[in-house]
Amino acid sequence: MSIKFEVLHVCKQSGARLGKLTTPHGVFETPFFMPVGTQATVKTLSVEEVKEVSEGLILGNTYHLWLQPGADLVEEHGGIRGFMQWDGALLTDSGGYQVFSLTEMRKITEEGVFFKHHKNGSSLFMSPENSIQIQEKLGADIIMSFDECPPPYETDDYMQKSVDRTIRWAKRGKDILASDQALFGIVQGGLNKDIRKYCAEKLIEMDFPGYSIGGLSVGEKKHEMYEMTHFLNPILPFDKPRYLMGVGSPDDLVENVINGMDMFDCVLPTRIARHGSALTTLGKIVIKNQTYEHDLTPLDPNLQTPISKYTKSYIRHLFKAEEMLGMRLVSYQNLAYLKHLMAEIRTAIKEDRLLDYKEEMKKKTNYFKSR
Amino acid sequence: MSIKFEVLHVCKQSGARLGKLTTPHGVFETPFFMPVGTQATVKTLSVEEVKEVSEGLILGNTYHLWLQPGADLVEEHGGIRGFMQWDGALLTDSGGYQVFSLTEMRKITEEGVFFKHHKNGSSLFMSPENSIQIQEKLGADIIMSFDECPPPYETDDYMQKSVDRTIRWAKRGKDILASDQALFGIVQGGLNKDIRKYCAEKLIEMDFPGYSIGGLSVGEKKHEMYEMTHFLNPILPFDKPRYLMGVGSPDDLVENVINGMDMFDCVLPTRIARHGSALTTLGKIVIKNQTYEHDLTPLDPNLQTPISKYTKSYIRHLFKAEEMLGMRLVSYQNLAYLKHLMAEIRTAIKEDRLLDYKEEMKKKTNYFKSR
Repeated sequence: MSIKFEVLHVCKQSGARLGKLTTPHGVFETPFFMPVGTQATVKTLSVEEVKEVSEGLILGNTYHLWLQPGADLVEEHGGIRGFMQWDGALLTDSGGYQVFSLTEMRKITEEGVFFKHHKNGSSLFMSPENSIQIQEKLGADIIMSFDECPPPYETDDYMQKSVDRTIRWAKRGKDILASDQALFGIVQGGLNKDIRKYCAEKLIEMDFPGYSIGGLSVGEKKHEMYEMTHFLNPILPFDKPRYLMGVGSPDDLVENVINGMDMFDCVLPTRIARHGSALTTLGKIVIKNQTYEHDLTPLDPNLQTPISKYTKSYIRHLFKAEEMLGMRLVSYQNLAYLKHLMAEIRTAIKEDRLLDYKEEMKKKTNYFKSR
Repeated sequence: MSIKFEVLHVCKQSGARLGKLTTPHGVFETPFFMPVGTQATVKTLSVEEVKEVSEGLILGNTYHLWLQPGADLVEEHGGIRGFMQWDGALLTDSGGYQVFSLTEMRKITEEGVFFKHHKNGSSLFMSPENSIQIQEKLGADIIMSFDECPPPYETDDYMQKSVDRTIRWAKRGKDILASDQALFGIVQGGLNKDIRKYCAEKLIEMDFPGYSIGGLSVGEKKHEMYEMTHFLNPILPFDKPRYLMGVGSPDDLVENVINGMDMFDCVLPTRIARHGSALTTLGKIVIKNQTYEHDLTPLDPNLQTPISKYTKSYIRHLFKAEEMLGMRLVSYQNLAYLKHLMAEIRTAIKEDRLLDYKEEMKKKTNYFKSR
C-alpha cells in the first residue's frame, strides 16, 4: 500500500478527527485542504508559491489534462509532478465530475460514457478502465475511481441505478489498476441516505485505502450537505481517510471536519480570488469596493505572509486596472488563509475545543452568514 | 543634484559608452534596460521577480497612474515605490507619449493639451506644469519633461513649431520643479536632423542632468532610428546620460548602444511574452508552435534562472490552456534575457569588442533578420 493513515485524536467536544496521512511525497496531518491545479498549474501561482500556501499536497484534474496536453505527454515528463515541477504530494480525480458537469450530449452505457469535448465538440469516450490508465500516466499518489456524478435531485430510481453502475465501475477500476497508487472509492447517492449507505457499504466491501464523498456541493442546500456527511461519518471505516470532494468554503470546511471528514479540495479560493474576493481571518471582503480605496492596511492584518506588505488600496488598484498581479496576490491570500484555517482547526481538535472555535469564527467573520 | 553620471570607458572598437549612474536608490552601470511598470506593476510579475530580472531600476507611466488610481492616492503611499513596494530606483515618463498616442480629440495649445480619457471619454487637460507636479507626487528618482510626441512623418513646418513648443514646455517644467528629482529634457524633431539638432542644443542650454530621445521607435524604419541616434551622439553632452525612450528589441539595444545611448525602456519584452514570444540567447521563439509540443528542454538552454526547470513543452501547454503562469514564465524569461544581454554588452564595451559581439549575435540569433 502506497499510503498509510491513522487517526491520532478525536476531538472530545466535536467528534472531529485529527489524523496522519503518509504518502510517497510527504506526511500530512489531517484534516487538510488541497489547492486545485486543474491544468497542471494552480491558477496564477508558481509552484514555489503553492508550496508556501498549501500543506504540500495538491489536486490535478484528469479530464482537463487528458484533453490538453494529453496523458502521454504528461507521462513523458514523468507525470504531473515532473510536468509542472511540483515536488509535493498529488491527487487526481477520475474525470467523472467533469464528464458529467462540463459536457453535453452524453450517453451513459455500462461500458462507459460517450460525450462531446466541452470546447471543440469532438467525440470522446471515458470508461472506468481508461480513467485509471490515464491516472496511472498522470502519476498521482492518490487517485479516484471513475464514477457517475448525478445531479442531487434525481429520482431515487435513477439514483439507485446510477449508484449500482458506479459500484460496478469502482470494481472494474480496482481490477485494472497496475500501479501502486492509492485508489479511493467514491460514495455517491445524492441526498438519499439509504442509497448513500448502500453505496458506502458496497465500496467498503471492496476495501479501498480511502473513501471519497462525491455529489455534494453541487447545488444542494448547505444543511443537506452537512446532514449527509454527518450521516456517513459512522458508516465509513474509522481508520481510512475520508475525502469530501469539491468543498472549500471556510464554513463548509469547519462543519464537515466536525462531521468526520479529513481531506478537502475546491477551486473556490482561487476562483473567487480572480474576481477580487479575499478570504481573511476577519471574513470575506470584496477588494474592488470603494471602501478600500484609501485603505493602507494589509489584506489580512492577522496573517503575516509575503503579501502583507501590500495595502488593500494597492490591491484594489490592481483589480481596477485589470492587472494580473491582483489575481495573484488574492489567490495567494485565499490559499494562505485556508492553510491557516485548517491549522487552527487541527489545533482546536487537539485541544478538544472545535465547537468553541466554530462559535468564535461565527462571531469574528461573515463566513456563516450565507445560509 | 539627485543623480550623478560618469562615463567609465568608451569601447575602442564601437565607440559605445560604459557609464555609472548614481541615484538615490542604487548605483547602476550603463547601458541598461528598464522594465516598464505601466500601472505600478510590471505586468504579471511580482516585485521580487522584477528585482531578479532587472538591474534594480524600472519605469512607471505618469499618464496611466494619474488616471488610475490618481497621483494623490499614490502619494499617500509615499509614491510609486511605496505603492507597489518597489525598493529599487524608479523613473517616470511625462505622460506626453500617451497623451499623443492613446487619446483622440486632442487640442494642443500653448498652455497644454486638452484631450479625452482613452477609455471613458471624459475631458482632461495636461500641461508641462501639472506633468511635473504629478511626477513629484509619484516620486521617481528620474522624471521627464512634458513634450509633444508627433508622428515621425509630420511636415518640417509642423515639426519645427512642435519642437519650439516642446522646448518652451521643457523650460516651464524646469522652472516649476520643486523637488530634487532629476528632470531630463526630451529631444524631439522626428526624422529631421536639423530640427533634432536645434532641439538638442536648446535643451542643452538649459542644462538638464540627462537627455532623453523621444519620437523614435514610433513607426519609422530601423535604419532611420539608427541614423538619428548616430547623428545625435556627438551633439549630446558626453558627460550626461542619454535615455532612448521606448526602445527594447535586442537588435535595437545593441545598435543604439553603439550609437552612444545609455538607458532604455520598452514594453516589448513583457508584451510579446503575453502572446507567447520568448526572447532567448538563441533568438526569438514562438512557444505555441507545434515544434515545441514534445520539447523537454528549457526555454533558454544558456541562461540558468529559476524558470529553467520548466520544459518548453510545459510552457507551450500553459499557453494552449490559457493559463496565466505561461505569461508569467515568458515575461520572466524575456526580462532575464534582456538583463543578460545588457550585461554582455557592458562586458563587450569593457573589452573593446562590441562590434564583434554584434556579429556573433547576428550569427547565433534571428534578432537582426527583421529588416
